[in-house]
Formats: sequence, C-alpha cells, structure tokens
Amino acid sequence: MDLSLIEGVAYLCMLVPKLDDLMMTSYGVMRDTEFFRKQKNVTVLTHTEAIKINREEKKVIARNLISGLEDSITYDYLVLATGAKPSIPPISGADLNHVFTLHHPHDAQTLKEFIKANKIKHVTVMGSGLIGMEPADALASPRLKVVLCEAESQVLPKLLDVDMAKLIESKIIESGVDISLSCRVNALEGDAEGNVCRVVTEQGTIDTEAVVIATGVRPVVDLASNAGITIGSTGAIQVDEHMMTSDPAIYAGGDCAEQHHLITGEPVYIPLASTANKQGRVIADHIGGIDTRFAPVEGTSVPQAFDLNIGRTGLGEKEAKEKGYNVVTSVSSGLDSTHYYPMHANITTKLIAEQESGRLLGAQVCGMGESVKRLDVLATALKFGAKVEDLIDLDLAYAPPFATAIDVLIHAATTQENMRLGLAKGITAETVQKRLQAGERLYILDDRELEEVEASPLPIEGTVVISLGELRDRWEEIQTDSLIVTVCGLGIRGYEAACMLKGKGLKEVAFLQGGISVTKAYFK
Amino acid sequence: MDLSLIEGVAYLCMLVPKLDDLMMTSYGVMRDTEFFRKQKNVTVLTHTEAIKINREEKKVIARNLISGLEDSITYDYLVLATGAKPSIPPISGADLNHVFTLHHPHDAQTLKEFIKANKIKHVTVMGSGLIGMEPADALASPRLKVVLCEAESQVLPKLLDVDMAKLIESKIIESGVDISLSCRVNALEGDAEGNVCRVVTEQGTIDTEAVVIATGVRPVVDLASNAGITIGSTGAIQVDEHMMTSDPAIYAGGDCAEQHHLITGEPVYIPLASTANKQGRVIADHIGGIDTRFAPVEGTSVPQAFDLNIGRTGLGEKEAKEKGYNVVTSVSSGLDSTHYYPMHANITTKLIAEQESGRLLGAQVCGMGESVKRLDVLATALKFGAKVEDLIDLDLAYAPPFATAIDVLIHAATTQENMRLGLAKGITAETVQKRLQAGERLYILDDRELEEVEASPLPIEGTVVISLGELRDRWEEIQTDSLIVTVCGLGIRGYEAACMLKGKGLKEVAFLQGGISVTKAYFK
Repeated sequence: MDLSLIEGVAYLCMLVPKLDDLMMTSYGVMRDTEFFRKQKNVTVLTHTEAIKINREEKKVIARNLISGLEDSITYDYLVLATGAKPSIPPISGADLNHVFTLHHPHDAQTLKEFIKANKIKHVTVMGSGLIGMEPADALASPRLKVVLCEAESQVLPKLLDVDMAKLIESKIIESGVDISLSCRVNALEGDAEGNVCRVVTEQGTIDTEAVVIATGVRPVVDLASNAGITIGSTGAIQVDEHMMTSDPAIYAGGDCAEQHHLITGEPVYIPLASTANKQGRVIADHIGGIDTRFAPVEGTSVPQAFDLNIGRTGLGEKEAKEKGYNVVTSVSSGLDSTHYYPMHANITTKLIAEQESGRLLGAQVCGMGESVKRLDVLATALKFGAKVEDLIDLDLAYAPPFATAIDVLIHAATTQENMRLGLAKGITAETVQKRLQAGERLYILDDRELEEVEASPLPIEGTVVISLGELRDRWEEIQTDSLIVTVCGLGIRGYEAACMLKGKGLKEVAFLQGGISVTKAYFK
Repeated sequence: MDLSLIEGVAYLCMLVPKLDDLMMTSYGVMRDTEFFRKQKNVTVLTHTEAIKINREEKKVIARNLISGLEDSITYDYLVLATGAKPSIPPISGADLNHVFTLHHPHDAQTLKEFIKANKIKHVTVMGSGLIGMEPADALASPRLKVVLCEAESQVLPKLLDVDMAKLIESKIIESGVDISLSCRVNALEGDAEGNVCRVVTEQGTIDTEAVVIATGVRPVVDLASNAGITIGSTGAIQVDEHMMTSDPAIYAGGDCAEQHHLITGEPVYIPLASTANKQGRVIADHIGGIDTRFAPVEGTSVPQAFDLNIGRTGLGEKEAKEKGYNVVTSVSSGLDSTHYYPMHANITTKLIAEQESGRLLGAQVCGMGESVKRLDVLATALKFGAKVEDLIDLDLAYAPPFATAIDVLIHAATTQENMRLGLAKGITAETVQKRLQAGERLYILDDRELEEVEASPLPIEGTVVISLGELRDRWEEIQTDSLIVTVCGLGIRGYEAACMLKGKGLKEVAFLQGGISVTKAYFK
C-alpha cells in the first residue's frame, strides 16, 4: 500500500490475526507494527481476526483471538489482503510430526532449528516449484540427504519448459540432491510417536526423517466467498483493473486476488510480492480518487537455486501451443560478459515467438551468469508487444564487465529470427535424442577445437570431430545421407559450420541449438 | 561482420595495415588472423594499407607497407571499416615522450610497463570521458598520484548531467585521485630530454611524469572523403539505414560511420563496439540480398569506474532542453536487491521525460549496485516509445537476490510520474544548494532515525531532525514560513514526510530527491 496515500484516507484500520504478520513493504521499506501504531490515523488491531463481512451495513465482524470477544468495525472501503496459504495435498500423514510447510520466514527458521537439534540426515521435499527448490538447495550438503519428489515429469513444471528444466536437473544432481520425477506422493507414514518416517510414492517408498510440503499455495478467499463476493475461475478473488471486487466498496490485492495475463488476456493466479506491491498502490490511488489501473501480468518469475539464476516471462512453449499459437522457439547459449573478465558465466536463453508475425510470446533463461538482466529486458519488450526482430536492434549497454559486444540476448534474438525466416535450421538436443533413440542415423559433427573436445567430449557414439577452422579444408570427408548435426560449445560455431556446409551444397544440415552446454543435459 | 554471411560473398579480401589489427568479433567470438587465413574464400592482406579508392573502376589501390609496392584490388562491394583514432588537442608538447593515448590494448600494456619500469609517481589524465575514467581508476593507488584534468565543469560531460556526475566526483576524490574541473590544458612542457614534465592549464601548472591524452576519438575518413564519399555533419561517413554510403557499392560501419539518434532523428557520432557489431551484420545481410536495416541508436553507454556502474541512454536533461523539449526529471535512490541479501547496494536513477506526454526521453544511472540491469530495461523501454507511466507497470523479475519487491526502477518511475502530475513536489540537491547560497532560508527537515543521523549527519547548518515515525506526534513543532525540505536516506521517507505535512495543511513542502546519498555530493 502506498503509505503516502493513507493520508488521503480518513481512518485506516488493519486487522491482523497474529502479532508478527504485519510486515508491509512501502517502496521496499519494511514497516513493523509499531510504526503503524505510531501513526495516529492508522489503528492496528493485532490478534484480531475478521470473521465475516456484512456488506449491506458495511461492517466487518472481528474476533479478538485472546479474549474471544466479537466486535464490528464499519468501513467506507474495505481492502481484502487475506493472502495465500500452503496447498496441502489430500494424502494421509500430512499432519504427522516433522512435516513442514514454508510460508512465513519463521517456518524456515523452525525447519532449520529442527534439523540442527536432531541431527537430521534425510529430508524429503515434495514439489520442485519455486517453493521447493530453495529448501532443497539450502539444505543439500554432504551430511544431509535431500530427496526432491516431483509429481510432474520435470522440475519447475509451472515455470519452465522441459528443455530448460533439464539444464537445472543436471545441476541439482551435481549438488548431491536426488530428484524423483513423475513421482507422485500417495501417503506419508509415521512411526509409533507420530513422527514421519516414510514417503510412499508411485515409484516406491523413501525413508525420511522430515518432509517439506512445497506443492504450491492457494488463495485465502473464505471471507470473500462467504460474503458473496465473486471468486474467479482461478480460485482467487475476481477483481477489475482497479483491484475492485464485485462489490465496489471492497477491493482485493496481493496473494488472494487474481490477475489477467498480458498475452492471453485470461485470468491467472500468479501470486508474487512484486505484484502485491504494485496492487497496493493501485488500490490506495483508486480509493483516493486517482484513476490508476493495474496492468496485466506477464508472470515474470525468477528463482535462484543451485547456483543458477532461473527465470521466465510470458508464455512457455508448451503453454503457447496449448493456447493455439503456432510457435517457433530457439535455445541459445552465450557468455553474460566478456571472456577476459573473471566473473563471466554462461546463460542459456529460450525465446518463444509466433511463427507468422515473429511476435515475442515468452522467454526463459537459465545460467550462472546475469540471466535476470536479460529476462527483465525481455519482460519489458513483451510489455510493448515486441517482435523478436525488434530485439536484434536493442541498444543495450555494452562494456566488457557487463556484456559481450553482441549481447547474448541479441545473439538469441538473431538466432531465433534466422530460424523463423528459414535462414537457419536448428535442432534441439531433445529432438536429437528422440531421433537417435528411435533408431535414426544422424551424422553428428563436433566443430570444437581438439582440446575442448578432450576436456568435455560429446557423449554421443560415432560423433565426428572436425574443428570449424579445419572444416573448409576437410568438408569433403563428410560422406553421408543422414542429417548432419553440427555441435559446438555454445551453438555459434555449429551455426557457422552449418551455414558453410550448406554453402558447399550439403542439403540436410542443422546446428544443435545451445551447443554442448545444453546437449549434456540430454546425453550423459 | 556476420561470418555466416561471408558464405554468400564469393570473395572477401581484408586489408589490414598491421598484423595485430585484425580481431573480429562474430557473436562475441574473437577471431584471429590465422582463422581467416584458413578460410579459403577469405584473403587477409596484413601490412597492407588501402591508400585510394578508384570508384569508377571499383578498385582499391593498396600499398604493402614492407615492400612499399602498390597494387590494385577490384571489388564488387567495398566495406569501409577504417575505425577511429584518438583525438589529440592542438596543444604544444603533445608529441613529447611519455605522452600516451589509449586506443589498442597494447597501448594500455605499454603505459603499465612504463609506469612500472620507471617507478612513476605522477600521472596526469587529460579528459574524464569514457576513455579517461578507466586509466584514472586503474592507476590510482597510494603510491601513484593521478590528476584528472577536465576542460568541462564536470566529469563524463558527454555522458551525464551535472547532478549525476557529482555522485561520481565524490567517489573519485575518495579514491585519492585529484580532479581539476573547468581546467583546459594549454600546453605540455618537457625537460631537456624531451620527456613531459609539466602540464600547463588555465588553473596553473601540474608537475607530472606522464600524460594520458583521453580527449575522445575521431573517425578515420580520409580514404572515404578523398574518394568523394559524403562525410556527414558529425565528421563521420554518412550512411543510410543499410550502412550504404553515398556510393551504393560502398558500405561503411563501425567507428568511421555515423548513426542516427532514436529520439531526435539527427545524425550522431557515438562510436561503440556493440554498434559496430550490429552494423557488421546489417552490411553482410544487405550485400547478401537480405533487407536488414540498422536501427537508430539511443547512445546507451556504460563505464565501470571507481566501483561504480555508470550509464546513460537516450537524451540527458541538458541535451533534451537544448533540443527544445519541456522536460521533467527525477532523481531517485534505492537498493538493487533486498537489504537482507549481503550483496545489496545502492543505485541512483535519473529519469528524463517530456512534461506534456510523459514520454521517456532518457535515463542515467549510477551506483555500486546492479544499475546496468535497470539501464538495459530503460533502453528497451525507450526503443518502444515508452511513457514513464508504462514503467510503473513493468512485470520485472523479483526475488530477494535480484531486486526489492518494488524494483528501484519502478520506484523511480512512480516518483517521476507523481512529480510530473503534480502529486509530489521534489527538489534537487543542486537547487537546495543554490538557494541556500543565494541567502534564502529553507527549513531542512531530516526524517531519518537518530542512529542514522549520527552515523552520517546531513552537513547543512540548522537542519532539524524529526524521524518519520515521530513526525505525526511532533509536526506542530514545525513553525516556519520557509520552504520545508524533507530529507532521508534515499528520498522515500522524505517523500512520505512531505505528503504527511501537506496533509496537515503545510503548503510549501518538497522532498529532497535521491535523499542524503545524493545530497552529500553537494554538501560536504
């Protein structure tokens, strides 16, 4: 909520069930209960739960959780900020001891202290979404075995397409965490003392000493729905662009309210702190008589886990296809800054665009490098309806500590646009894997220098190594009727090799998108 | 140059005066001479200087710099990539020993070795632009005195407005470098051996043992102008959107060619590696029959110096006013990531917009934090003609390691838009300084907590300290007819305090933009 606008509201009363639940962020500044208590026209009622809304009389019935007494509070405008709570799957044993959820910072502290005090050696995390990834990363250590159970066939299923998720799976395994994919949990079992000791899954049982349930959150809407306020198709409170509910005196914002998606126009439920903050300003403005609107969201989300900066904005490939778009995608890898700067690191970028128009529909990034900078640029471009060809022109900041002269994002956009226009033919590691598994012969040509190949060989049998520098002298050695797949470290030399071979008259040539850094997630 | 498109060109011949001048970047991959020599349809002629273009016969007259023999090379298309060279001011002594310029990486190496071998203790850098800042930063040490001489009244005069430059000046001084502003150099004087020993400036003489001339670059256009190719008003080669010169068989790209500015539409000369790379692709595409265009530039530039990430895109305030825009500006400070993350740091953002429409015209950033991420977002928004109000809605990536829940950029945009609409009244540190110096009384109200004030007091005499939390109880203590200027750490609480006081009926209140982090550059 924009505190400056509280001035415009005669009387503001906040109901907070717990004492410590009031942590409001105004422009990033944390405020505690005491701050609000000091503000004479803000009344903070802690240990007070709103139990019913009487819309006719514009009253909230509130119960003091200590005395048990009920009282009613009148309002001109009511703002519902009831948030979300962890979604617990309907399995037996979810109420056993040592089964945790992560919602409040205190929950993380409790889990940490429990593990330390009891010298816990096995923790199972249910769910590999934004909430599950962080504890799996934070807890993983040589002395503590973490098993990540995911019902879907990939990690971060709501965030990433499967090809991008593969890149993270490799890193998770490297860090010593076990991942069980397509592994729905059917029950938790406890010992005689009621402490969880086993996770029963579709793939067998896992012995464990603690379980973290991280299977998402759901909006808290009981107060609203009991008062007859419209709940949207997403299960969250339906609001208009001013965050107004079906009752014009009642607004809703934050994790209890739904949003609209910029690309599809459809209602979505993507609860994020950044969204909640922006909505607070819109609500305060609108109550104060200023016609501010909350814009549609792109679902930009970005976890940091397992040394990777991971993110997405807009639609994923799978989602876009489900929505009926004819999509073209590219996967490109590159360095986030110049190779002679010590901190440079790799980034892989996936762009999803509409085949016909070239309009950007979404993007996904992953890497140890500064991928979030590129994601923010892509989120900004998406907001303005950018086509991928517009990205090629972006006048992004270049200096050696910050980027390469051709930014990795511009390289990704050029690759994508060349593919869309048919100037370049790429093939994904997933497709190569599938076609090889189906028994098809492919001519895999590794274009890297010999020392690179020796340091990190491509684990595909029959791969031919001819470096790009030598290819012009040796291309006639390539005698094949199969599709030639050119592979290099990042995809760039593979692309150049493919162009060269096509120039020599070889017809069936495709470069492996994203190079070996992506390929290794499929071939081990 | 897009190497992939070299395939489409039957024969490519490169003329390179020196052996080591050929370092081409294709998608960020450095290529050396040997690479090109291996490519059978690329001929590299090193130690060979193009001395004349015969446009009628489509021939280049080239001289072998070792044998002295001349030869002619025919072309279908000719690409001029003659680059730029350091601009040496017309002063006496510029040819003395130990006067350096920085153009090639070797130049930096030579300077470094000279300083080391001769135990140099005093270096004078002429010019505080992009080229001068880096050696001043790199050389500064307790054992080596660096003096930065700048003819203009601020550092980075072509990059930043004076208020943003002030932030950097503080950091330069902290690092032990002396800055002399408005200090034009009239001559360099040497000793009996012809070694530079004194810099004669408008403000007196400086004893020195070495001088770095870093007063910009100018395009190398002799070859083009001697051939009658049109040189633009900027002094660089005029080109169209395909990088074609006035001769349709001759293209020019990189540091010898001019660009057009996105906002003004006017020709500009902003030589950058990122621009050169993009232009290479456009030239190769166009020669190859693909209708690619080079987009207007925004002049996005970003040095890293004195632990600061500094940048600009679009027009500065001064430039925008000179071009006749009615501008509104804001200066905002904030953290680049959450305060509980160890790596968080401050960023100051200046936004320049058109008063009437709110259209973004330009932006400048400075800080130890991730300011370049925000600059890239702003450069992207600028490309799409964004209004500042559009920035408020941006769905940027939020997670605690990457941003605050309200990103510092969104905070800047909100502040700017509130100011443009008259909802908030800000005042700059520069204006406060000028008005106080002119003898005006201002009521300076520091809203920070006492411990913050004690740790870093505001150096303005008569400042009253009432923390924001206490202000609602104590506002009646404020008895003044003067303008009340509310100040805090970053500007946010100052803004809230100003809103509150205006709510209490005090009419003349303004918050100090950017808070104390900006103010300290003006008040010491």
